Amino acid sequence: MLPVLGVDADDTLWENEERFHEVEQRFRDLMVPWAGGDATDAALLAAERENISRHGYGIKGFVLSMVLTAVEISDGAIDARSLAGIVGWGHEMMAHPIELLDGVPEALDDLGATHRLLLITKGDLGDQMGKVDRSGLADRFWRIEVVPEKDVPTYRDVLDRHGVDPAEFTMVGNSVKSDVLPVLAIGGRAIHVPHTTTWAFEKPDPADLDGVDFPVVDRLTDVAALL
Amino acid sequence: MLPVLGVDADDTLWENEERFHEVEQRFRDLMVPWAGGDATDAALLAAERENISRHGYGIKGFVLSMVLTAVEISDGAIDARSLAGIVGWGHEMMAHPIELLDGVPEALDDLGATHRLLLITKGDLGDQMGKVDRSGLADRFWRIEVVPEKDVPTYRDVLDRHGVDPAEFTMVGNSVKSDVLPVLAIGGRAIHVPHTTTWAFEKPDPADLDGVDFPVVDRLTDVAALL
Repeated sequence: MLPVLGVDADDTLWENEERFHEVEQRFRDLMVPWAGGDATDAALLAAERENISRHGYGIKGFVLSMVLTAVEISDGAIDARSLAGIVGWGHEMMAHPIELLDGVPEALDDLGATHRLLLITKGDLGDQMGKVDRSGLADRFWRIEVVPEKDVPTYRDVLDRHGVDPAEFTMVGNSVKSDVLPVLAIGGRAIHVPHTTTWAFEKPDPADLDGVDFPVVDRLTDVAALL
Repeated sequence: MLPVLGVDADDTLWENEERFHEVEQRFRDLMVPWAGGDATDAALLAAERENISRHGYGIKGFVLSMVLTAVEISDGAIDARSLAGIVGWGHEMMAHPIELLDGVPEALDDLGATHRLLLITKGDLGDQMGKVDRSGLADRFWRIEVVPEKDVPTYRDVLDRHGVDPAEFTMVGNSVKSDVLPVLAIGGRAIHVPHTTTWAFEKPDPADLDGVDFPVVDRLTDVAALL
């Protein structure tokens, strides 16, 4: 049996953050009558932070937080059609074509020759599964797991359910907080493949990086050489 | 190894529909300036039907559909605070205490003595996992699966991943459409435990019931006697 390699999806296999940034810009524009861009960003981030435990990660929660933030920033003055428009932005995001990152299919073919590939992603269940389907990459994975949070208990649980020893598990992804630190914490290996931008929620606490060491590569294609 | 018994969660283990009905009543009340109760119900159901493939099942999608319906019914005249209030109803639903149905913990204890219990539920991932946690029932289950849809491909996939032969699998739940018909279709057994109300989306097509036969029991406690 081949060893198991965990692979993140959003911003590791395909563009994701960029979709959110485009919509955040529209949201800033919509809020101009009541607030500047920085104030809008700060209010939205605060709403997301307050709601993440109930909304989880993903587009639907993002939309709900934008709706609440718009009502708050405008002190209830924003018109109902604009709020329905925000929901429409969410629908656009859900239907957006998948843009694979450079060399991803080939990299997965290489990695899949020596490893059983386990996709581990967080977000809305249906949305994440839909992206996997539309990506055309589903067949390259041994198993696909959508989880509510990528933390130590979740990794333990996922590996346990699939009969994988953490000491023989490697995770690859663009988020130090979600793909690297919790995997190192359970005795696995992790390889960081940074993406151009990192969402505020995915920035690790600097204290958590003390004395932690892990390889960083530019692209998924560079991972095979490290295994 | 004990045989595997699939168990539905919402309205099989605990009240769920009732929560939605309470909020639907509030929604009707909110729409009174623009529409009667029946027209509001019909518009909301149409919005849910249109959006289910992108929203999936669960509270967040329900809230988004209510927001869109309110804007449409009021022709954009509803005030922003009321729309934020709809999001607040969703938050209340997410935080609602779990009300177990009669005899559920005891029934699961009995069933768990002879079967490995596999909870299979659809809806928002984080919300469903949170309910399992808050129910205090998590330890009674061998495995827990939150799926985007409970149809033939999903059951095939779930059973395959857990190494369960459909011919040796039995599913128990309150929805003929989601818990009974697809399981019979893959060669498994199913036992229907009806709940007081059934959501329009969970009503099976009468044609699908032609020539189909399955046992129906009043309560989860009555299932053990049939196995």
